[in-house]
Amino acid sequence: MAVDKQDRPAQRRGKLLSLIKKAGLQGLLVTNPKNVTYLTGFSGDDSYLVVTPSKCVLLTDSRFTTQVEQECPDLPYETRTARQPMSDLMSGFLNAAGIHSLGFESLNVTFAQHQDWTTRLKTITLVPMPDLVEQLRAIKDATEIAETRDAVEMAQRGFEVAKSLFVPEMSEAQIAADLEHAMRRFGASKVAFDPIIAVGPRAALPHARAGTSRLQEAGFVLIDWGATTPSGYKSDLTRVVATGKVPTQIEKAYRVVLEAQLAAIALIRPGQSCQVVDTAARQVIENAGYGKYFGHGLGHGLGLDVHENPRFSPITKDELKVGHIVTVEPGIYFPDLGGIRIEDDVLVTKDGCEVLSNLPKSFDEFMARR
Amino acid sequence: MAVDKQDRPAQRRGKLLSLIKKAGLQGLLVTNPKNVTYLTGFSGDDSYLVVTPSKCVLLTDSRFTTQVEQECPDLPYETRTARQPMSDLMSGFLNAAGIHSLGFESLNVTFAQHQDWTTRLKTITLVPMPDLVEQLRAIKDATEIAETRDAVEMAQRGFEVAKSLFVPEMSEAQIAADLEHAMRRFGASKVAFDPIIAVGPRAALPHARAGTSRLQEAGFVLIDWGATTPSGYKSDLTRVVATGKVPTQIEKAYRVVLEAQLAAIALIRPGQSCQVVDTAARQVIENAGYGKYFGHGLGHGLGLDVHENPRFSPITKDELKVGHIVTVEPGIYFPDLGGIRIEDDVLVTKDGCEVLSNLPKSFDEFMARR
Repeated sequence: MAVDKQDRPAQRRGKLLSLIKKAGLQGLLVTNPKNVTYLTGFSGDDSYLVVTPSKCVLLTDSRFTTQVEQECPDLPYETRTARQPMSDLMSGFLNAAGIHSLGFESLNVTFAQHQDWTTRLKTITLVPMPDLVEQLRAIKDATEIAETRDAVEMAQRGFEVAKSLFVPEMSEAQIAADLEHAMRRFGASKVAFDPIIAVGPRAALPHARAGTSRLQEAGFVLIDWGATTPSGYKSDLTRVVATGKVPTQIEKAYRVVLEAQLAAIALIRPGQSCQVVDTAARQVIENAGYGKYFGHGLGHGLGLDVHENPRFSPITKDELKVGHIVTVEPGIYFPDLGGIRIEDDVLVTKDGCEVLSNLPKSFDEFMARR
Repeated sequence: MAVDKQDRPAQRRGKLLSLIKKAGLQGLLVTNPKNVTYLTGFSGDDSYLVVTPSKCVLLTDSRFTTQVEQECPDLPYETRTARQPMSDLMSGFLNAAGIHSLGFESLNVTFAQHQDWTTRLKTITLVPMPDLVEQLRAIKDATEIAETRDAVEMAQRGFEVAKSLFVPEMSEAQIAADLEHAMRRFGASKVAFDPIIAVGPRAALPHARAGTSRLQEAGFVLIDWGATTPSGYKSDLTRVVATGKVPTQIEKAYRVVLEAQLAAIALIRPGQSCQVVDTAARQVIENAGYGKYFGHGLGHGLGLDVHENPRFSPITKDELKVGHIVTVEPGIYFPDLGGIRIEDDVLVTKDGCEVLSNLPKSFDEFMARR
């Protein structure tokens, strides 16, 4: 039976209520805007969601009332006025709700907010709950998987357009502009993050932003980019494109990074340790003598946020589950010479995994210069 | 004497040290990435800055080392490895530094981080300092004013290009794409925020996102947009453009909103209460009988963040100072019919103020239909 998209937020709130009950709490105050969106379908911000067994209520303000009624018509809401801070509306509501133990999102709530709340919520015990909603968000449902497929498609089609526009005089910033415009053409509401466009030696900076370097200044360019769908789901991909003469060391690194990435992807299946997957890629790079040039984790979960659980790293305790969507992105970075990173988005399935992205990445493709 | 741009971060750290000393502290742990950028020139993220009278040290990781050396060559830094969490590098550094009282940014640090830190920093008293750096950031120096002028120019030129491309079939999302691409053409590194493009009735949603409505579906479109410069400074503007037949009630609201905006701007000068400025605009709108259709504050400070101090609202205690850059953006929103908002960016000067943006906004301009 197909489930109506509209029912998803209610289903998610049902699962959350089980976790709230299991934690021995009477409710959860949801303040992370992405979590509010996940649980309601409401895409605005500056709003809190109170989740209790008897009711779920959105606390918002008059800027958003029309939007709330359009995006989640069945959800009760209360609004503050321009003269009333959110903490005032929130504490008034909660103090009248007869709640004595309330979870709050301690990974999102600031120290200052918590200080303020403890003075306002005198009869309520606030219990830090780091990641109740994030636990649910890590496992993508069918709607979310379809959204992520869309985000990957928007990114891939945008990339093909941007690449087709390459001329030697083009700067990184111009490529970023064309890439973004092209992804919007295919339905993206925005980029998933500031794209990294790094010509030659600049690719040694794993987080280089698009700047003034031009394609003609080197023989290759690293592009790390993604799209955001109108519902907020994201893709995150990296390719290195040869545009001229590639230094031999970069060619060699490309082969090693690709081998490392494929070795990691081959291990992705439910129940697998994320540390084991990270180690598999790291081992390939270390065996090639490049261990010290790979300083970051192998990848991360992907969804409404571009960095979610689970994490691939040498120190993670995470384990893969059906419905996880993760990036796999090993890299090798030589200071002053440049770097290679290859990144795909991978869905963990019952039988193993499905690589959602399919842009060419073979060494032969890489070396097939324009 | 012209001050070299490169010296600004050091000057700002000098001012911060005075505030740290005044607060009776031995140092400040800066964790808000925008504050780190402001104090160092380093534009990456995931990095902390420790500021003490004897030294300032950036705590970062290997992804950023090349970037740190390029962006702030004189700043000492320490890096964590992929196997080490940031809190481990941070606590190791601070425990060895002989500090006993340390301020932290309580508006930015989460409850969970503070919990973790108190167990790691056993001999250090952590003192919540909500906004030490934000106090400095509210007053823009000459470099920041020049950057904001650039951000306004990029936004204005982008707007003119996007407007020149209008055809009736165009959707809000297409306008957003063209606007963004055009701003990048004029040097923007990205948008300042997701642009709001709202055709006709959708303009009743003060935070509507660009969607599928087309220009031909109504006689006017509201556009709220801004640019980010490569250094991170932002502009934030709103105009309503007539594209066909405008409902009489919207025409009337336009006149009222413009009068309200001009009344507020006329009051902007050093020493002025932000509440008084907000009230002046609100009074014009209330006198016209539209009081209940203006539910948000009049405006906000603008800089590395798109919402900074000071704030214009009915409940603010803020006061204007020379070097503040603020938005002035009254609005009237009729559910189902649409809304009007007019927004400019204003610098507080010794003698009063300077409106940095100068796109046409007269009623005659508004009514001069295509």
